[in-house]
Order: sequence, then C-alpha cells, then structure tokens
Amino acid sequence: MTDRKDGECPAVASIVESSTTFTWLLGSLLVFLILRQLQSWNVWYHLKIMLEFLRPVPMMNVEMTDAETRDDGVSSSPPPPRSTENKRSLHDPQHPGFIQCFDPSTGQYLGQVKAMNAQDVHEACVKAAAAQKEWSKTTFAERRRVLRTLQRYIVHHVHDICRVSSRDSGKPLVDACLGEILTTTEKIRTLNAWGELWLQPSYRPTGPLMMHKVAFVEYVPLGVIAPIAPWNYPFHNFVNHILSGLFAGNAVVGKVSEHTSWSSQYFTRIVRRALEVNGHNPDVCQTITGFAQAGAALCSDPLVDKVIFTGSPGIGRKVMETASHFLKPVILELGGKDAMVIVDDVQLNDVYPWVMRGCYQNCGQNCVGIERVLVYESIYEEFLQGIAPMVKQLRQGVPLATCPSNSGAVDCGSMVTEEQLDIIQALVDDAVAKGARVICGGKRNTAGLQFYEPTIVADVTPDMRLFREEAFGPIMTVIKVPKDDDCNCIDLVNQCDFGLGSSVFCGDQSRGLAMGRQFRTGMFCVNDFGSNYLVQALPFGGVKDSGFGRFAGPEGLQALCLERSILVDRFPSLIRTSIPPPLSYPIDKEKGIGFANALVGLMYDESWMGKLKSIFGLIKYGS
Amino acid sequence: MTDRKDGECPAVASIVESSTTFTWLLGSLLVFLILRQLQSWNVWYHLKIMLEFLRPVPMMNVEMTDAETRDDGVSSSPPPPRSTENKRSLHDPQHPGFIQCFDPSTGQYLGQVKAMNAQDVHEACVKAAAAQKEWSKTTFAERRRVLRTLQRYIVHHVHDICRVSSRDSGKPLVDACLGEILTTTEKIRTLNAWGELWLQPSYRPTGPLMMHKVAFVEYVPLGVIAPIAPWNYPFHNFVNHILSGLFAGNAVVGKVSEHTSWSSQYFTRIVRRALEVNGHNPDVCQTITGFAQAGAALCSDPLVDKVIFTGSPGIGRKVMETASHFLKPVILELGGKDAMVIVDDVQLNDVYPWVMRGCYQNCGQNCVGIERVLVYESIYEEFLQGIAPMVKQLRQGVPLATCPSNSGAVDCGSMVTEEQLDIIQALVDDAVAKGARVICGGKRNTAGLQFYEPTIVADVTPDMRLFREEAFGPIMTVIKVPKDDDCNCIDLVNQCDFGLGSSVFCGDQSRGLAMGRQFRTGMFCVNDFGSNYLVQALPFGGVKDSGFGRFAGPEGLQALCLERSILVDRFPSLIRTSIPPPLSYPIDKEKGIGFANALVGLMYDESWMGKLKSIFGLIKYGS
Repeated sequence: MTDRKDGECPAVASIVESSTTFTWLLGSLLVFLILRQLQSWNVWYHLKIMLEFLRPVPMMNVEMTDAETRDDGVSSSPPPPRSTENKRSLHDPQHPGFIQCFDPSTGQYLGQVKAMNAQDVHEACVKAAAAQKEWSKTTFAERRRVLRTLQRYIVHHVHDICRVSSRDSGKPLVDACLGEILTTTEKIRTLNAWGELWLQPSYRPTGPLMMHKVAFVEYVPLGVIAPIAPWNYPFHNFVNHILSGLFAGNAVVGKVSEHTSWSSQYFTRIVRRALEVNGHNPDVCQTITGFAQAGAALCSDPLVDKVIFTGSPGIGRKVMETASHFLKPVILELGGKDAMVIVDDVQLNDVYPWVMRGCYQNCGQNCVGIERVLVYESIYEEFLQGIAPMVKQLRQGVPLATCPSNSGAVDCGSMVTEEQLDIIQALVDDAVAKGARVICGGKRNTAGLQFYEPTIVADVTPDMRLFREEAFGPIMTVIKVPKDDDCNCIDLVNQCDFGLGSSVFCGDQSRGLAMGRQFRTGMFCVNDFGSNYLVQALPFGGVKDSGFGRFAGPEGLQALCLERSILVDRFPSLIRTSIPPPLSYPIDKEKGIGFANALVGLMYDESWMGKLKSIFGLIKYGS
Repeated sequence: MTDRKDGECPAVASIVESSTTFTWLLGSLLVFLILRQLQSWNVWYHLKIMLEFLRPVPMMNVEMTDAETRDDGVSSSPPPPRSTENKRSLHDPQHPGFIQCFDPSTGQYLGQVKAMNAQDVHEACVKAAAAQKEWSKTTFAERRRVLRTLQRYIVHHVHDICRVSSRDSGKPLVDACLGEILTTTEKIRTLNAWGELWLQPSYRPTGPLMMHKVAFVEYVPLGVIAPIAPWNYPFHNFVNHILSGLFAGNAVVGKVSEHTSWSSQYFTRIVRRALEVNGHNPDVCQTITGFAQAGAALCSDPLVDKVIFTGSPGIGRKVMETASHFLKPVILELGGKDAMVIVDDVQLNDVYPWVMRGCYQNCGQNCVGIERVLVYESIYEEFLQGIAPMVKQLRQGVPLATCPSNSGAVDCGSMVTEEQLDIIQALVDDAVAKGARVICGGKRNTAGLQFYEPTIVADVTPDMRLFREEAFGPIMTVIKVPKDDDCNCIDLVNQCDFGLGSSVFCGDQSRGLAMGRQFRTGMFCVNDFGSNYLVQALPFGGVKDSGFGRFAGPEGLQALCLERSILVDRFPSLIRTSIPPPLSYPIDKEKGIGFANALVGLMYDESWMGKLKSIFGLIKYGS
C-alpha cells in the first residue's frame, strides 16, 4: 500500500489505507460467520458422506432356493405337503421341532423352518453378543457401506423380495413394493444421510455453578437388540430394526412371526451377505424362528439388552411382563385404530384414492392402516355413494400373476392368518347386530382360501366393537360426524383405547392441524396418509394401548444406545474441581451449613441484595 | 452521491459509487449471518426470559405445624407415642388407616399420616386429571412463575426445609442443604432457563421423496405423571418429578415412601401454595401417602399416563410387572454400585475429601453414592493409611443441634430404616468371612437408635456380596486394582449387575475419560463426584439392574410428553400430495408394479444410469 503508483489519486490511497484494518476485521467476521452458518447446515458432514458415496460398494449375490425364485412358489424339491387343502397347520406332530409354512393365498406348502427352543435362542444370542464386540468398533463409514450394499441389492432385486414376501403373506406386488421396499430404502437413505449426526455427542449447558465443567451425552451401542416382528410385512418389519440396530453398533437377534418364517430365510441371507462382502462377521445378525416359547426365551435371555415388540396389546402385555422380571427395557408398538377424518370442505374426488389406499393397502393389515373413516354429516351420504362403486370393483385373488387360479391383476390379496378372518367377521357381525349398514362385502370370499371381501360398514357408532377394536382387515369402517362439528369429531377420534396415527382431510390445512393437535395419537398428518412413515427422520409410535417408545428418527436410533452423561473439567490443567473446606469432613457446626446456605443464596436468590449477603456469607464461613 | 463537492477527487466518488451496491449486499449478508448466529445462541429466547425475571414473583407464606418448626421435633400436640423406645412400628393396629411417623435418629414420635387405599389413590388421580385440563393450557411463562415462586421460598427457607427433612430421615443439615436444596434449586434454574427450548417443536429433514412436506415433532403434555419416591432425600426426591412434570404441563400424583411421609405434608403445602398464589388450581399436585398397596394402586390407575419409580430392583420389577398389565410406560431408577477409581498418578491428598463425601454423604444413602473405591495396587496401602484416621474422627449422632443428646456438630446421622442396618451388617459379615479387612467401624453404633458406624472394609473381592450388592450405608468398600492395570480396573468396575454412575480420579484427564468410556454406566465423571447431578441439563439414569429411562435434561422433560410426529404440506395452496394414478385402485397389472419399481430406482439407485432408466420407467408406466 505504501508504494503508490504515478497518476493515482492520493485520496484513494488514504481511504484504502485507513480502511484496511477495518476491512480485515469485517472480512474475518464474515468468514467466521459464514463458516458457522455452513457448520449449522452440516455442510461438511454431508460433503464427507457425498465423497464417501463416490466409492462404489461391492456387488453381492444372494443364493435363492428353487421355491423362492418361482412365481408359483411350488418347490420342486419336496417334503410333500402332508396336510390337505382343508387342514393346514403350522404344527406337524411328525416334525415337532419345525414350523410348517404355507402360502396363505393358495394354501401351497412352502417348506418348513426350525422352531427354535430356549437353548437355540440362547446360542444365537451368544453368537451375536460375541460378534458385537468387534462390530461396535466399526466406524460409521463402515456401517454405511454395509447399508449401501444392502440398498443396492434391494433396488436391483425388487421383484425377488416382493415375490418372496407375497408368497409368504399373500399380498399384491404393488403393496409389497410400497410397504416392503419403499419404506426400507427410505430408511436406509435416512440412516446413511443423518444417522451419524444423530449419534454425535450432545453438549449441554452447565450453568453458573458448574461453568468450569464440560458436560455432554455420548451414544454408545447398547449391545444386543431383540426385535420381535409381526407378520404383516415380512421383509420391512424384519429388516427395520436390523438396519437401525446395526447402524447404532449393536447386534440384532430378531424373532420373526411363525406365520411368515419361510421368507425370513431369504431375507436373513441378504443381510448376512451384505455384512460378509464388506468383511464383517455376519453373526451380528441372528434370526429366531419359532413359536411363543422362542419369543419368551428371547425376552428373558440375559444377553438381550432391549426388546422391541410390534404386535397386539395382548402379547405386548406378556412381553413387558416377561421383560419386567429381568428389568429389560421394552419398546411396544401395538397397533391402532387410526382415524381418517373427512371434513365437509374437501373435494371428495381428491380424497377417494387416499381412503381406498388407507383401507385396502395390504388388505388392511397395517399398523397405521385406516381403521375408522369419520365423515362429516353433510357429505356423509355423498361419500358413501361415491366410494361404494370403487370398492365393489376391487379384484381379489391370488397375487402372483403366474398362478393358475389368477387370470389377471389383483387389488386385494389374502389374510396372512386364518384366525384373522374370524376376528373380522365377529366385528362386522357385532356392528350389524347393533345397527350398522354393510354397503358391500361383509363376508369371506370363498373364491380363495383366506380371503375376506373388501367391505364397507357404514353408520358405525362408539357402542360397536368395530369402532374400538382393531380389525386388521379390508374393512372400511365409516362413522358419521354429527352436525359437521369439529368438537364432536375430536371426541369421536379420542373415544378409543388406541392412539397410533390419525389424519384429517380438509380444505384448510390450518383447520386440520388445529384438530389434529387435539387427537391423542403419536402421529398425525393433514391431507395425506402413510407419508409420515416415509419421513424416516420422524419418530414412529403411539400412546395409550398403542404402546410406548419410538423407533425411526433420532429418537429411535438413540433408543438403541446407552445414553451416557459425562462431566469433565473444561481446563483440566488449570482449574480442578475441589470440595470447599467447609463442606469437607469434619464439618464445622456453623461453617458447614452457613457456607452451603450462602452458596444457595449466591446462585439462586433472584435479588441482588440477597446475592450480596450471600457473598459476605461465603467469605465469613468459607475462611 | 451524485452531488460532488468541489475539491473532492473524482476517483473517490467513482469507487464509492461502484461499491455501493456491493457494500449493501455485503452488509445485508453480514446482518443476516449475525442474526442467524444470535438465533443459534438462543439470544432472543434468553433475553425474553431475562425480561420476564424483572417482574418479581408473589411472596408466599406456608403454614408450619408446631412439630415442623421445632428443632427438637417433639410436637406439643400429641397423639401420644404408643410405641416404646424399642417398639417403633409404622403400623399401629389401633389406627389401621394410618402410618406412624418417627424421627429415625431419636425414635421420637412425629405424628401420623393417612395410609391411603386404592379408592383414595383413584380420587387423587381424578382430581389431578381434572385440574390438568386447565394447567396444560398455561404458558411456559406462567409455569416459570410458579417455579420462581417456589425457588424464592426455598432459598429463603433453607433451614426449615432441611430441619423437616432431617427430622424425618436423620440426616445432618449440611447433607440436607447439598442433597435436598442445592439439587432442587439448580433443577428449577435449569428448567426455567432451558425447559421451554427443550419442548419447542423439533423440525426434521424430509428427504427428496417428501421434499414438498414439512415434518416436525411436537411435545404435548402426557397427562398424569406418577412418580414413586424413595426415602433417602424426602424433599428433593419428592419435588424433583413434580417440577419437571408441572413444567411439561402435566399433573403429578406422587407417592412418597412410608418411611418419610411425615415431611411430605409440609413439602406438599409448599408446592400447592406456589400454585395457589399464582392463581392456579393446586390439585395438579397430589401426594399419596401409604404402603405398598397404595403404590400398586397408583401403578394400575387408569388415569396415570406414566410411572417413574426410584428404589430397589426388587420393587422395580414389581412396579414394571404391574404397569405391564395396563401397558403403562415406566422409568426405573434402581440404585447402583458406583465405582470411584483412584489411579496411581493422583495426589492422594486431593482425593481424600472426594472419597469421604462420596461414601459418607447422607450416611451413604445415595443412588449415586460411592459403593466401591477401586485403588491401584501401588498406592493401595498408602491410601488406606491416609483415609483411616479421617474416617475414625467422623462424629456420629443426632443431627439437629438442639436435641438433648447432641452436644455439638455431627458428620454422620442415622439410617432412615431399621432394616437397612441388618442389610449392611450382613454384607460386612459376609465380606469379613471371605477375607476382607475391617479397618474401622463394621458394626452398629449403639450410642444412638439406628446408627451404623462409619466403616472401611478393605481387600474386597468380586466373590463377596459387598462387591456386588448395594449397601446404601456408611461403608467405604475398598478394592485393590492388581498390577496398576487399567484393563483389570475396567473389568472390576463392570463385574457388577448395576450400571448407574462411576468416576475416575487421575492425573491425566484423557486417560480417565478413556477408561470411563469403557465402564458400562449411565453416568461418568473425571476427578469429581456428584457434580453430574448438579448439571441438570444432563440426563440421569443407568443401565443393567440400575434400570432404564432418564430424568433431568431434555430427555427427562420430553419423556413426560407425548412426542407427536406431524406431517403437513409445505405449500398447501400450491402443491397437494396425491397418490399417483398407477398406484390408485384399480391397479393395472403392469403399470402398478412398474411405476413403484421405477420410483424406487429413481430415489435410491446410486448410479446415474439406474436413475435415468427409472425416469423412463416413470414416464412409461405413469401415463
């Protein structure tokens, strides 16, 4: 700056010179603030992950059995199905240690899997716990690679996974692709994008009393996680907790339902293979197949650190009771009776596809399926007239296209369990006896094996069981909201022991939001259904008889960790914490309580006079 | 800028002019970034609260009974103590519906309180639930005022609260001031400073699939919280959950121990008065006094939304089992066997006061008291020689100074329950029988009623019950760490069913931290003891038999809320979510699965080629 060139105006140089320091200061501030802002947007973190993604993951190949690859599902390698068409039982007295597996939509015999006993369960836990020691030391980058390997396999084997799931649970392929695949891939994406951030140490304010300290919470793998999965989504409900469990550094010993154990063999191979091809011990993922006894053994195994149960409230109580004897923490996800509210100001044509998907996706066998449709009085009959033809034209049948009995496309498949048909029928019959109207369906579909017709039951009221008890089937339960009154509607929604999800369809989003905030449910959305679960950064779970605890989101991931509170000195070489002499033994009668009292006054008395007095007290008693 | 003055250099004006726009842009950016930074430091939030604190809170006066105001604790208004000195029982057959209360250090009769039955408990819950409806609508500012009113009362009535606590539990006043007052006032300060922030809606990333959505979690009051408090800190353990429960908008129905029910009457009046003077219905705070039956009734009352139990693992199991029948969530805080590790590189003189406070604070009746002192072999004997004289000079007696039997200051008071004396003696006898050394104490102190001598038991090994079972008494359990080896030490710490807290004293903080990270405990500190609990922004809780769930910190506050996941449209008037036609019923055989498959590919296939193919798929099947 001091070397001035000829022809330059002296004033310019002077301005430039005098403002140099200022410019520097301002520039530094700007750079600092920009960096802070980028940091708060986690730019470096996401950049790191993007760079990581440039390196491709290993290809992997998972062996499939003959039965798994064939759309008609019939294995060319028997054991022959002993049971006849009318006598399918999971138990076969001739093979007491096995579960017999059937396609619920055709009754075809699929094979048998081991029904594990307590000893088998414990051995699986021992293996898992041993492998977890190494797995817990892996970096997040290594865990992301395993998840990416899985993701790549899933994206390229949509049809295989859907077929095997469909074969075991009788669901149409589209339902499988939405409920099994899309949910899982979004979960993997979310875990990879945000999981590490959610498990970073969380620093806490220490307050004036402890300002010389640093306080933070660390998230440490809990050890062995034991999810117990239901039968409605054999793939997603199985891998769901494996993904988050592994990502958090745990081993996962998961029990699958006895009704969908056949498919778990293929799904287990997928996960274990993804671990193997990345050089990890696949023993961190263990699958338990078996009956209630195996589940009870898992809940009481000393190596299990947390139980996550998804299922009915009845079994949920038993799981929690068993866990109570061993002081094991549990997360319970126990189904719901989710309400979809249709307010009088909606365009009904926009709403019909949502109601249809909400009620008949997976034949109504969804935790967050729509179990009650609350329609405002003034549009009630119009709604019924509009929706009835759509339901009547639903085609029910065997989902897999190449099966001989199936000539074309199928909208609704079968029930997974035969018992469910009786439960549904009892609920419908009770409602009809108490004055409800069956608009269509209302009975078994005898064209197939475990089919229940897509059904509309209207005029359902709170005194009917169908209003309160989970149907878990293809039943659209329609309830009239008297006088188009929001308060009546809120009352109706909350008159139920469940509290999982809910949704409102209405023209004005803020009105819907205001209503939803008065529903006692763990999840809620406006003008949508099911998308809550496609935002895997949101916690999933309910209240009341829908259970407690959350999975998904940071809450779900942190719940699989030991949350450890840590306190250390901020400047360990300068300021060490010590006990003030008046509070050290032996305690002086006056000084001890005088000092403690003054300390409380200094820190917590709001008045300056009080604080001043306390300072004198500290001096007086502290010396 | 265009009006140039004579004598000004044209170049200056030109620079100024050309840089004006740039300066404006830069300035705006700077202001934006500064505002964002201030926001991220919560400056506006804290400013709001500071302004709120300028308005003083109402004074309040709480009536005290004669017995509560007298340091000798003897009520001038009998019922006369029927029991003799050697026959004190909480049960009196002549008054079956009451708990008889005694001062554990003198045996003086204090009075009787109602032993509530299931009907009484339910009535309390009904009142609480009714009052909560209004209370849940209060603003955080209103709740802060209630807490500030309480804070003011506590700060100005330290001696009253400590006296009543001491009378009911036999603790010295300094122990009461640290454990009852300081903890509570810090909790109130933290809740007032941070609580509202911790309960703000938490926004979540929605991901590419749901980028047109806004996702957030709301924290809604849960309803009625039922803490069940232990007897070791009658004031703090009682108000602890009331404070956070009320702050989160809940009603609190708290059960106190039958051993310290007398003091709960005064403490209840304090909280209810603070609500009253601020114009709120005091019914949101209900106190349950009674025996196990009352506790069971509370755990099973249909109006209770969450149970928080602090106590022994044995009762914890029962609480969880009872709660399991009603699917009630529980938080269990079940004590510990906390280790304090003394590494070979410390200055022992700095450590002695910590060990003394850790072992003898409140006569060892602390959840996070030091139950095991692990000393490295090379300094083991030196440690014992240094600490023994300090323990021997501890003075034990009746804590309240004006009591006739007490001539001066007291370091250690009495046990709260008589049973605890037998438990302690059994543990010490077992250790001695297996080869442990009693350095001092080791027996009851017959000078008083329920006194156990401050004791050192050295050479304790993992085969002794004293190594693993909670003593909850004035026992310093000293364990040698062989070969000064950190790994041996970590093994010893973890060889225990409890996992609450732990601490390491060592010269090098990073070494201590590295060790602590391998302890399986919920809390940990280096070169400190007990300060974890004075950082109320840290969650408190353990693993293994120490229970699960957390109180304090954002975790503790959010655990008292219904965490509700909400999803709405980002631009509700522009973009409404709809179900793509190929996924709406009736499903086209090819289009449905083709579209779903392509959607998965577009979103989750890592390769650009895969994404491109998926776009073609979406176009093909989506039309």
